[in-house]
Amino acid sequence: MRASAPVDHSEVLVRPMTQQPRRRFADLNPPTRLLCGSGPSNPEPRVLRALATPLIGQFDPAFTEIMDDVMALGRLVFQTENRRSFPVSGSSRSGLEAVLASVLEPGDRVVVGNYGRFGDLFCEIARRYGADVTSIDAEWGTIVEPDRVVAELKARPTKLVAIVHADTSTGILQPLAEIGAACRVYDALLVVDAVLSIGGCELDVDRWQLDACIGGLQKCLGGPSGMAPLTYNERVEAALHARRSPPPTNYLDLLQLQAYWSADRLNHHTAPTSMVYALREALRIVDEEGLDARWMRHRAANAALVAGLEAMGLELFGDRAHKAPMITLVRVPEGIDEAAVRGQLLDDFGIEIMAAFGPLNGLVWRIGLMGYNARLECAVTVLGALEHVLSARGYRAPSGAGQQAALAHAKGAAVA
Amino acid sequence: MRASAPVDHSEVLVRPMTQQPRRRFADLNPPTRLLCGSGPSNPEPRVLRALATPLIGQFDPAFTEIMDDVMALGRLVFQTENRRSFPVSGSSRSGLEAVLASVLEPGDRVVVGNYGRFGDLFCEIARRYGADVTSIDAEWGTIVEPDRVVAELKARPTKLVAIVHADTSTGILQPLAEIGAACRVYDALLVVDAVLSIGGCELDVDRWQLDACIGGLQKCLGGPSGMAPLTYNERVEAALHARRSPPPTNYLDLLQLQAYWSADRLNHHTAPTSMVYALREALRIVDEEGLDARWMRHRAANAALVAGLEAMGLELFGDRAHKAPMITLVRVPEGIDEAAVRGQLLDDFGIEIMAAFGPLNGLVWRIGLMGYNARLECAVTVLGALEHVLSARGYRAPSGAGQQAALAHAKGAAVA
Repeated sequence: MRASAPVDHSEVLVRPMTQQPRRRFADLNPPTRLLCGSGPSNPEPRVLRALATPLIGQFDPAFTEIMDDVMALGRLVFQTENRRSFPVSGSSRSGLEAVLASVLEPGDRVVVGNYGRFGDLFCEIARRYGADVTSIDAEWGTIVEPDRVVAELKARPTKLVAIVHADTSTGILQPLAEIGAACRVYDALLVVDAVLSIGGCELDVDRWQLDACIGGLQKCLGGPSGMAPLTYNERVEAALHARRSPPPTNYLDLLQLQAYWSADRLNHHTAPTSMVYALREALRIVDEEGLDARWMRHRAANAALVAGLEAMGLELFGDRAHKAPMITLVRVPEGIDEAAVRGQLLDDFGIEIMAAFGPLNGLVWRIGLMGYNARLECAVTVLGALEHVLSARGYRAPSGAGQQAALAHAKGAAVA
Repeated sequence: MRASAPVDHSEVLVRPMTQQPRRRFADLNPPTRLLCGSGPSNPEPRVLRALATPLIGQFDPAFTEIMDDVMALGRLVFQTENRRSFPVSGSSRSGLEAVLASVLEPGDRVVVGNYGRFGDLFCEIARRYGADVTSIDAEWGTIVEPDRVVAELKARPTKLVAIVHADTSTGILQPLAEIGAACRVYDALLVVDAVLSIGGCELDVDRWQLDACIGGLQKCLGGPSGMAPLTYNERVEAALHARRSPPPTNYLDLLQLQAYWSADRLNHHTAPTSMVYALREALRIVDEEGLDARWMRHRAANAALVAGLEAMGLELFGDRAHKAPMITLVRVPEGIDEAAVRGQLLDDFGIEIMAAFGPLNGLVWRIGLMGYNARLECAVTVLGALEHVLSARGYRAPSGAGQQAALAHAKGAAVA
């Protein structure tokens, strides 16, 4: 280490990066896709630019100010006055697990309103942390009737009720206000997965009395996956403090995370700076557009898509009265190869739509217009490509009917 | 939803983003910083550009190919033939916790070689998951003598030994090969935190017989924080399969993660696409530069910094024989205000250096030249700024001595 070392390091030290390097792995150059599945959707261009912003340190005053903005913007988008509003540094399910892991202790009773795959996920996580889980199962394509949740709350003391706001596996939107009110009456905590719904339809944490709510970045918020914004109220915070012992997880321990994401600034993990930038920009765009305008845009773009699909003679899956306004499940017509259609859409048109999970796999497609993609031009593009692919495979629909219906719907004109 | 709806949505649907929005939160515009603390360091410019790459779907063939590249590149950088090499979608500690949570069951004996804050973190995580932890404490600034670990292995059957390769809290580099050999003899699994060392100095997972090893992206790999590349061998995989029950965590369950990060492609969380892009680009740059050249660059740049600090009359902290070659701990001179110096470096020069943890807080600064910043120009810039700030506060050093010594050292010339 002493300066008398005889080696001349000037070669390796002075601009080492200008040497012509060997290249064994190709340049990053993914194809251009229109992402109309269940997420990620194409992010807002401004969010992509934010990702490329140079880094600063995690305790730099300029960064703690950015963290404060993220917390404030989270409150606006969740519609809450909660003190606690911050993201977990991971994909959406890290936020779901953070809440369950931090609140639940072995033996606690949990009731899950389960109408799709992400209800199953709530059950799995809660059971792993030792909870006594009752799953109220509703047929895929329907909601969980709030009465059934209330009945379970009446039947036995319950620590926590978990339910998904909009389940991407079934395309259903679950009413929450009645369940929220019941949880207060029976002193249970209501935890809601709003990963799909946040930024895409009404979500009113305080009015609906949701005690904890977790969002996703890569769907209707128009960002990349990898951060899970969440919020929780004082009832949840009291439960965190009332634990007999800390949860097994350190990485997802809300008490440690809230000490970092607050004026205390207690060191925990190193925040993923680029993803914090992206989350801030995505939330800022939501605030600029306005919640009502954004929900309207999602409703209108997806309704135009639905009008087009129906004009093509396709059938939707699930209870229309509770259809989620950012994703549409369409039945695969008789005799059509589900996977082959998706493959051709991707290969010939660069369009991604999604297969379905579990019992619906092979039977329906899932088409989402979310975030930046909740635009009429995306609906029309998907409809045109789908008509082409289905026609080539023997499905008969009036030529151009889907696109015409979507355009006409958006203009508010009547369609036959 | 029917097409006869009377509302004209064309206004909201057609290019809604071109409307002039309200702006309640400022544009993202963080100051330019030279990050010479313990991480994040300034990322490679190519990595920042990779972050801004448009997204594709997680099961898009183009994306699964990118995942395959990340796994292959991980093997090269960890120097391993392990089948399992993939990142956890979270900050570095999510990788540490994934390994401990997935391997350990309540009551398992764990021995931690503990010579700094991140040894404490290993103890904390293992205890949270119910392990019976023995911490072998070494004084901060020294290594854990391998004999002490061997003695603990002899004393009682041990499931797992955890130790940090280079602890950023003390700037010490821990020898591992002897501990690796002993773990095979006594049938314990060796888990190593290489968050700081990976990409910055020799790390040879297979030759040193490390059973699991976790890296960090935001230090010597030159990326943003938020992904934890790791690798583990068949001994660890056997332990995962031998569990009596799954671990509490779903998000950090290695069996689920490896089923996603492999040819099985089983759906788990949605990978953070942008961060996967960044990780791939960072690892690709390491491969292009070559491991030996990269380690040499870190050694040389940091040795130049050390030569400069010593020429200024400053004293280093810790055992010089085991100094980590990417971070340097410097004692705060008598009568100098530690925090004020850091504040002035940040405010007047845009340079970040780091405070110290725990017992060293207020007594030393931590200066890191890592990843893209392991360059002579960074060493010289820090030295010049530090001289200015210290002089202004009454510390006397020969004018220009630090920079001259660093430059001379890099050229291989003798310095008085």
